[in-house]
Amino acid sequence: MRNKPIANVNADLLKERKNCSFDIEELTNLIDGGKNQTARRREIENMLLKNMPFDIIPEECLSAKEKYENAVRKSVALNKIGVELVSQVTKAKELSDLTLTLRRVSDAYFREVTPFLLHLGMFIPTILGQCSDEQVAHWLPLAMQLKIIGTYAQTELGHGTFIRGLETTATYDERTEEFVLNSPTLSSSKWWAGGLGKTANHCIVVAQLYTKGECYGTHPFIVQIRDMDTHMPLKGLKVGEIGPRLGFQTADNGFLVFDNFRIPRDSLMMKHAKVLKDGTYVKIARHSKLTYGTMIFVRVLLVSEMAFNLSKAVTIAVRYSAVRRQSELKPNEPEPQVLDYLTQQHKLFISISTVYAFQFTSNWLMKTYHTVQANMKHGNTDALPELHALSSCLKAICTSDCSAAIEQCRFACGGHGYMISSNLPSLYAFTTATRTYEGDYTVLLLQTARFLVKTWEQVELGNAVTPMVAYLARHQNREAWDESPEGIIRAFEAIAAGVYQTESVRSVSFGQSDAIKDVMKQLSDLYLLYWSLERTGDLLTTLKSTLGSYDGRVYERLMEEALKSPLNQEPVNESFHKYLKPTMNKL
Amino acid sequence: MRNKPIANVNADLLKERKNCSFDIEELTNLIDGGKNQTARRREIENMLLKNMPFDIIPEECLSAKEKYENAVRKSVALNKIGVELVSQVTKAKELSDLTLTLRRVSDAYFREVTPFLLHLGMFIPTILGQCSDEQVAHWLPLAMQLKIIGTYAQTELGHGTFIRGLETTATYDERTEEFVLNSPTLSSSKWWAGGLGKTANHCIVVAQLYTKGECYGTHPFIVQIRDMDTHMPLKGLKVGEIGPRLGFQTADNGFLVFDNFRIPRDSLMMKHAKVLKDGTYVKIARHSKLTYGTMIFVRVLLVSEMAFNLSKAVTIAVRYSAVRRQSELKPNEPEPQVLDYLTQQHKLFISISTVYAFQFTSNWLMKTYHTVQANMKHGNTDALPELHALSSCLKAICTSDCSAAIEQCRFACGGHGYMISSNLPSLYAFTTATRTYEGDYTVLLLQTARFLVKTWEQVELGNAVTPMVAYLARHQNREAWDESPEGIIRAFEAIAAGVYQTESVRSVSFGQSDAIKDVMKQLSDLYLLYWSLERTGDLLTTLKSTLGSYDGRVYERLMEEALKSPLNQEPVNESFHKYLKPTMNKL
Repeated sequence: MRNKPIANVNADLLKERKNCSFDIEELTNLIDGGKNQTARRREIENMLLKNMPFDIIPEECLSAKEKYENAVRKSVALNKIGVELVSQVTKAKELSDLTLTLRRVSDAYFREVTPFLLHLGMFIPTILGQCSDEQVAHWLPLAMQLKIIGTYAQTELGHGTFIRGLETTATYDERTEEFVLNSPTLSSSKWWAGGLGKTANHCIVVAQLYTKGECYGTHPFIVQIRDMDTHMPLKGLKVGEIGPRLGFQTADNGFLVFDNFRIPRDSLMMKHAKVLKDGTYVKIARHSKLTYGTMIFVRVLLVSEMAFNLSKAVTIAVRYSAVRRQSELKPNEPEPQVLDYLTQQHKLFISISTVYAFQFTSNWLMKTYHTVQANMKHGNTDALPELHALSSCLKAICTSDCSAAIEQCRFACGGHGYMISSNLPSLYAFTTATRTYEGDYTVLLLQTARFLVKTWEQVELGNAVTPMVAYLARHQNREAWDESPEGIIRAFEAIAAGVYQTESVRSVSFGQSDAIKDVMKQLSDLYLLYWSLERTGDLLTTLKSTLGSYDGRVYERLMEEALKSPLNQEPVNESFHKYLKPTMNKL
Repeated sequence: MRNKPIANVNADLLKERKNCSFDIEELTNLIDGGKNQTARRREIENMLLKNMPFDIIPEECLSAKEKYENAVRKSVALNKIGVELVSQVTKAKELSDLTLTLRRVSDAYFREVTPFLLHLGMFIPTILGQCSDEQVAHWLPLAMQLKIIGTYAQTELGHGTFIRGLETTATYDERTEEFVLNSPTLSSSKWWAGGLGKTANHCIVVAQLYTKGECYGTHPFIVQIRDMDTHMPLKGLKVGEIGPRLGFQTADNGFLVFDNFRIPRDSLMMKHAKVLKDGTYVKIARHSKLTYGTMIFVRVLLVSEMAFNLSKAVTIAVRYSAVRRQSELKPNEPEPQVLDYLTQQHKLFISISTVYAFQFTSNWLMKTYHTVQANMKHGNTDALPELHALSSCLKAICTSDCSAAIEQCRFACGGHGYMISSNLPSLYAFTTATRTYEGDYTVLLLQTARFLVKTWEQVELGNAVTPMVAYLARHQNREAWDESPEGIIRAFEAIAAGVYQTESVRSVSFGQSDAIKDVMKQLSDLYLLYWSLERTGDLLTTLKSTLGSYDGRVYERLMEEALKSPLNQEPVNESFHKYLKPTMNKL
C-alpha cells in the first residue's frame, strides 16, 4: 500500500480536488515552516515508513496484554531509527524539528501510543530540567541511547492536582547516606505513569523529602526500579500496570508502591536543592519561577499536538463526506454527497478553522516561549506570568475544543464513525485525555480567571498591562465586568479569540500568493487543511483510517478491515458448540 | 462481594447519607411505579445476581474475540433465566416490567452488551409488527424460546438514513416460487446488525422487492442464514463480523452479502403486503401511519434507557466526589471533599435534574404511546404525527444531552475517570452510539423542525394546534419567529423544556410526602438519585464501577482491579526478553 502511486481514486474526491483554488505545495511549505523543512520531513517519513514493521491483526482486535506486547515490538523498531537520526543532528533547531516529526509519525504508527512516550516526553526533559550538571552528564547519555528506560511518577491514587498533598516519603538516613522511600498509605501509591507498568527500569519519583526530622516538601528522585539484566522488580517495591484506560491503551500506565526502599543520596535530582552527607538540606538559589519552564513548554506542545489530532479527524470526516452519498433531494437525480448538506458543512468547517487558529497560535506561543527563556537567562522574568497564564488557558481551551470538534467529526460520519478502523474513536480518546493530564481543565480555567482578575485590578488602578490583556483596558468603559464564572470564562475566551485573529493572520503575512491569503483569511475553505496534508507520505497510514484514506475507497477498506478480524478467521466460533447449540436444543 | 451486608463504608459517604432529607424507600417506589413493583424488581435482580456466572479476568482486558466468547457464555446463562421468567408471566404489563428489569440487569452484567440484544430488541418486535398472524404463530414461539437466534439487517455499507436507497434486491422467481436475494454492489452489503457476525442463524433482511419486472420498494424478509446444526453459513451468502467499534464491543455486529441466495415465497413478512404464487404483488390495505408504531416505541424506550445510563454515571461521579479529597483551602485543615467545590457541583447537579426530566418525560410519553395505539385500533390516528415528532425530538435531544452529561461526569472524576474500571468510558460509548442509531441526531432535528414549521403555519392561519405546541400560539405575538437553524432549535428545546417542567411535577403529584415534593421540585438535591438507587441489589455490580461503589472504597477497588490485569500475572513480560533487552544492550 505505501509508496505506491495512488490509483483508482474515488471520482467525487477527484472532482473536489480539482476545485482547489491555490497551490497545495505552497501551503504545505507554509505549515512546515519552509521548503527545506517540508523536504526533510518527507525524507524522514518515507525512511520510517519503509523500515518499520506493520500490524497484521488490527491492533484493536488484540487483548490488552497483546496490545502492549505489539506496541513494544513496534516501539523498539521506531526507537532504533530514532536514536540513529538523533545522533546525526548537530543543531538545536534540527533536533526540535526531528522530534516533532518523530512524534507525529509515531502517532500514526500506533493506534494508541508507544510505551516510551514518557521516556521521551517526561524522563529526558526532567533530567535536563531538574538534574545538576554532573547528574545530566551521567544520566542523559544513558537515556538518549536507551540504555535505560525511564518514566515519571508524580500522581498518586489519592493526589493529582494538589501536588503538595503527595504522600510518598523520601526520608534521609545519614548513617547509610541513603534516602528511604515509603508509600505510607494505599492512596500514596504512585498511579498513572506511562511505561511504568512493565517497560521502565528507571523512574523519576516525586516524594516528600524528610531530613533531620523536617519535611522540605516534594522533590524529584531518580530511582532504579527493575534489575537491569532480569528486569525483575527490585526488592522493597511493588510495580504493575493499572488496567485498561480510555485511550493510551498501549502505554502500560503503572503503579508503584515502596516499602522501605533505599536509594543513594545522589538519587535526589539536585539542580534546585541538595542534601549534604550529614543530612543538611541546602536550597540552591535560583529564581523560583524558573521551574515553570518545562510545564509551559509541554502545554504549548499539547496545543500544537491536539490541533494536529483535530486536523486528522477533520480530514477523515471531510474525505468521507465527499465520498458518502445519501438521500434523494430531487427525484431521479443521484443522491448528493453528504458534504453538500449545510448541516454537514456546519459540523465540519468550524473544525478546519479551529485547527488553523490553534496551530498558528501554538507556533507563535512557542516563539514567545523561546524569547522568554532567553530573557530569563539574563534575569528578566517579566513576561513569565503572562506566558504561564496564556499557555494554561490555551491548553485548557484547546484540548477541550479539539475533543469536542473531533466528536463532531465523528458524528458527521454517521454509523461508520463508530468503527475503530475509522480512527475517530481513538483520536477522541487520545485528545480528551489531554483535557485532564498536565493540568486539569477546570483547574486551569480557575488559574486563568485568577490571572484575569489580577490584571483587571491593575487596569482599574490605571496601571499598564501587557498587550495580550490590553483588551481589558480597551473594554473597561464599554462593558461591565461580569464576575460570574460564565463572565470570566467569556472574558478569557474573548482574549483567546483575539489572539487567534491577530496571530493567524500575522503568521502568514509574508510572501505568499493572493490565493493563499484569501483562504487563510476566510479560514473556512474546506480543502485547505485537506491539501496541506496531501503529501505527508502514505496518508492511509498517517490517518490510520478506513474512512479518511486519500483514494476515498471507503467501503472497500471497511470490508477489507472487517475481514482481518480474528472472529472472521473461522466460519463458526467455538462458542456456538460450547454455549449456543446446547441451549437451543435444550430449551 | 454480592449479597453480603456492606461493611467498612467510607466515612464521608456515611456522613453525606445521614444528611438525606426524605425517605429513600418512598422515592424508590415512586420511581419503580409502586411498592409491589419495587419488591418484584428486587426479587428478580437478586435471583439473577445469585445465578449468573461472573468474569474472572476483567472484560476490558480480553481480546475482541475473547470478549465475544465471554459475552456468549454469560448471555446463555442470562437467557436461560429470562426464558423461564417470561414463561411464568401472564399479563402484558408484567411482561413489560419484566423486560425492563431484564434489560437493566443485563446492562449491569455486561460491560458492553449481549450478542442477543437485537434478537430481543428488534427480531421479536419486528415479527410482532410485520408478520401475518400465521407467520407470528410460526416464528414467535421459536424466537421466544430461543430455538432460533435472530437479528435485523437493514443498514448497508452505503445506506443508513435513506432507507429508500437500500440496494439489496429480493427478486421473485415464479417458476420456483422463491425470492432470489442479491447484493449487487459492495455498498449494498448489510452492515452493523448486532449478533449477525457469529451468533444469529436467522436474520430479518430489508430488501427492494422486485416481481414481474417491477420494483415495489423495501420490504422485510425473514431469512435463515446458518445451518441449524453445524452453524455454518449457508451457501450463497457471506456473513462475518465488522470489526471493533466504539461501544457495543460484545454485540458481534456483522455484515451479510448475498449471491443469488434463494428463500421461500413466504419469507416475505406479510402483514402489510404479499406476493402471490404467480408473482402478483398485493398491498394489504392498512393505515400507512401504522408502521410508525415500533419506531416510536423504540425511541421512547431509548429516552428512558439513556436517562438510566446517565443516572449510573452521575451516581458514580457523586459518590467518588464525596470520597475524593483534594487541595488545601485553609492551612492545616483537612483537604475538602471535591463535592464541596462549586465547580464540581456545577458539573454534577445538572446531570441529576436531567435524569429526572428525561425519565418522567419518557414515562409520560410511554403512557401517551399506549393511548394513541389504543385509539388507532378504532381508526383514530390524529395524535400520531405529534407523538412521532415528539418522540423523534426527544430521542435526539436526550441521547445527545445524556452523552454530554456522562462526559461531564467523567471529567468530574479527573484522571481516574479514564479508567475503564470506572465504567464511565463504557457508559459514554454506549450512550453516544444511540445518538446515531435509530434515527441520526441531525436528521431527527430536521424532522422536528419540519413539524414545528408546519405547526407554525397552522398557528398563523389561526387554526387550533395540540396542547404540546400551544406554546407557539402563546408566543406568537411576543416573540418574532426566528427561522434560522438556531432559532428552530431553540424553539423545540423550549417545547421540550415545557414538557419536562409540566410532566416532572405531574408525574409525582399524587400522595407523596412534602419532603419528596420539595426535592422533586428543586430537582437539584444531590442525594435524590443517589438514594433512589440504593437498594437495587448489589450496587457495585449494578454500576460496574470502581469509582462508584456504595461503600466508597475507591482506592482499594482501583488497586484490586489493577491486580487482575493479565499483564500483572507475571513480574516480567516476555517482550522484555524478546525486544527490550536486545535493544538496550545493542545500542
